[in-house]
Amino acid sequence: MPDYVVGVDLGGTKLVAGQVAPDGKVTREHYAPTDVAAGPGGVLAQVAAAIRRVSEPQPPAAIGLGVPGLVDVNTGACLFSPNLFWRDVPVAQIVSESLSLPVFIDNDVNVATLGEHRLGAGRGYRNLIMVTIGTGIGAGLVVEGRLYRGPGGSAGELGHVPVDPAGQVCNCGNRGCLETTCSGPAMARRAAQLVTPSSMLWRRHQPLDARAVFEAARCGDQLALELVRETAAWLGMGLAGVVNLLNPELIIVGGGVAAAGGLLLEPLRENIKRRALPHPAAMVEVAVAALGARAGVAGAGLLAWDGVQGAP
Amino acid sequence: MPDYVVGVDLGGTKLVAGQVAPDGKVTREHYAPTDVAAGPGGVLAQVAAAIRRVSEPQPPAAIGLGVPGLVDVNTGACLFSPNLFWRDVPVAQIVSESLSLPVFIDNDVNVATLGEHRLGAGRGYRNLIMVTIGTGIGAGLVVEGRLYRGPGGSAGELGHVPVDPAGQVCNCGNRGCLETTCSGPAMARRAAQLVTPSSMLWRRHQPLDARAVFEAARCGDQLALELVRETAAWLGMGLAGVVNLLNPELIIVGGGVAAAGGLLLEPLRENIKRRALPHPAAMVEVAVAALGARAGVAGAGLLAWDGVQGAP
Repeated sequence: MPDYVVGVDLGGTKLVAGQVAPDGKVTREHYAPTDVAAGPGGVLAQVAAAIRRVSEPQPPAAIGLGVPGLVDVNTGACLFSPNLFWRDVPVAQIVSESLSLPVFIDNDVNVATLGEHRLGAGRGYRNLIMVTIGTGIGAGLVVEGRLYRGPGGSAGELGHVPVDPAGQVCNCGNRGCLETTCSGPAMARRAAQLVTPSSMLWRRHQPLDARAVFEAARCGDQLALELVRETAAWLGMGLAGVVNLLNPELIIVGGGVAAAGGLLLEPLRENIKRRALPHPAAMVEVAVAALGARAGVAGAGLLAWDGVQGAP
Repeated sequence: MPDYVVGVDLGGTKLVAGQVAPDGKVTREHYAPTDVAAGPGGVLAQVAAAIRRVSEPQPPAAIGLGVPGLVDVNTGACLFSPNLFWRDVPVAQIVSESLSLPVFIDNDVNVATLGEHRLGAGRGYRNLIMVTIGTGIGAGLVVEGRLYRGPGGSAGELGHVPVDPAGQVCNCGNRGCLETTCSGPAMARRAAQLVTPSSMLWRRHQPLDARAVFEAARCGDQLALELVRETAAWLGMGLAGVVNLLNPELIIVGGGVAAAGGLLLEPLRENIKRRALPHPAAMVEVAVAALGARAGVAGAGLLAWDGVQGAP
């Protein structure tokens, strides 16, 4: 058997393919912008081309692929992807026929969770939740040492846990989902609402987004610091509920907003500890994702290794 | 080996012991009021006496015991019970030494969930949540066919998932926990706030509790019907979050408030389906607990059978 697989992290703006060794080590990465307008056939041709680019000297043992959307891991189909505008696309079948290789797919957050659990911040933990905070909020769950996908494959939709009955209407149609209170766009919206000339956010020429807020907070800007505190409070409220419900040992925070590091993590940890019940609060740890953007390719590779080795 | 175990359901007001056959069938039940004031030693002597009462002709193979509080299933200790006013009581050890029999204990909601999963509304399902709604709100989780207790044994604290940042302060110290919005006492509080002479709840001589509200609702009382709708809306909001997070196949509703049956279940089901994401909403079923009060004794018996048979 070849000594590597190819892991692919397929996103709405770019795709990454890389060789992944059995120990999860990633080499020979190749990036390409995702041409969403090309539709499923076009995007999956891009994916196959990227895989071929990194498939040398001999072909890989298998392909693992993380897809941003709802995935049926048994049939290898993507049932729905809001970012790619896909519905019922037989992803594994198309890529497998194109390359004559076994292909295993899963949701992108699950794949990143697999990477962080086996190789990153979650090594050695049997019950953890990985939260990704960016444009949306998602989560991957590891229960008793194994990825928990739910019987329909849609577990982990933390962003659509309702936390504020008086809150904003969410993209999902519901009101006050966690995603409406502390995602990247939610921070940007609050910043635009509250900004005044006394804040350095007022004078920026760049977009008033979550990154700008964290930069200003790092410089001590009072409004930005308040926005970060507010974000940590909402996220802490949502995660305190998860801690009470699931009693995890570890929460891993990843995604774009998590790049803020300690600035967000310290108040978040404090909020979770204060709001959850004493027993589960005392045992849960909160850590930043360790693999960064590489979690996707590494996790997709591990998914492929699990697949060829017949792991459950 | 004897052909029966004894299951015990220990509550804050009464305790029940019964013989439980390997198939979960319960016979020879014995009830006694719980003398909480007697402290752990006194209550556990009562438990041992009740077990002896139903242990004939020969002694049982083992004892299973459901305790209202946080339990360490490995050591058999009750770490904390707000209803019994216990802290760090080595329950299994005390009862085992008193009767010279193996004793297995777990949290009361977990024990009832085990009963409903194997013998009641949850038979044949691999991923379910059992919700008990009464004075408090608790939950038991079955994940991939097995009871999920969490690494610290405290999973399932659904009552302390925050749903309303503008809500009442909860017994746990947090604000707006699910328990403050739709438990029995929450219904009673709302009834007292809203009652007017035009409602039949105004003229009652009995306490204005959840039972009174459901009785009045059954008679078509408009205020009572509105209170039931409000309860179903809050509970539906909390459970929609659980459905999005865990993608369960089934939600079983039990406990005192669930005795309202279809009156609560219909609007609850409608709220969950409407507020959860389409995919997990379409696959989740909502059912009333099938074993009623017997779930506790039956489940405790199954716990004991699992224990003597070395099940994981």
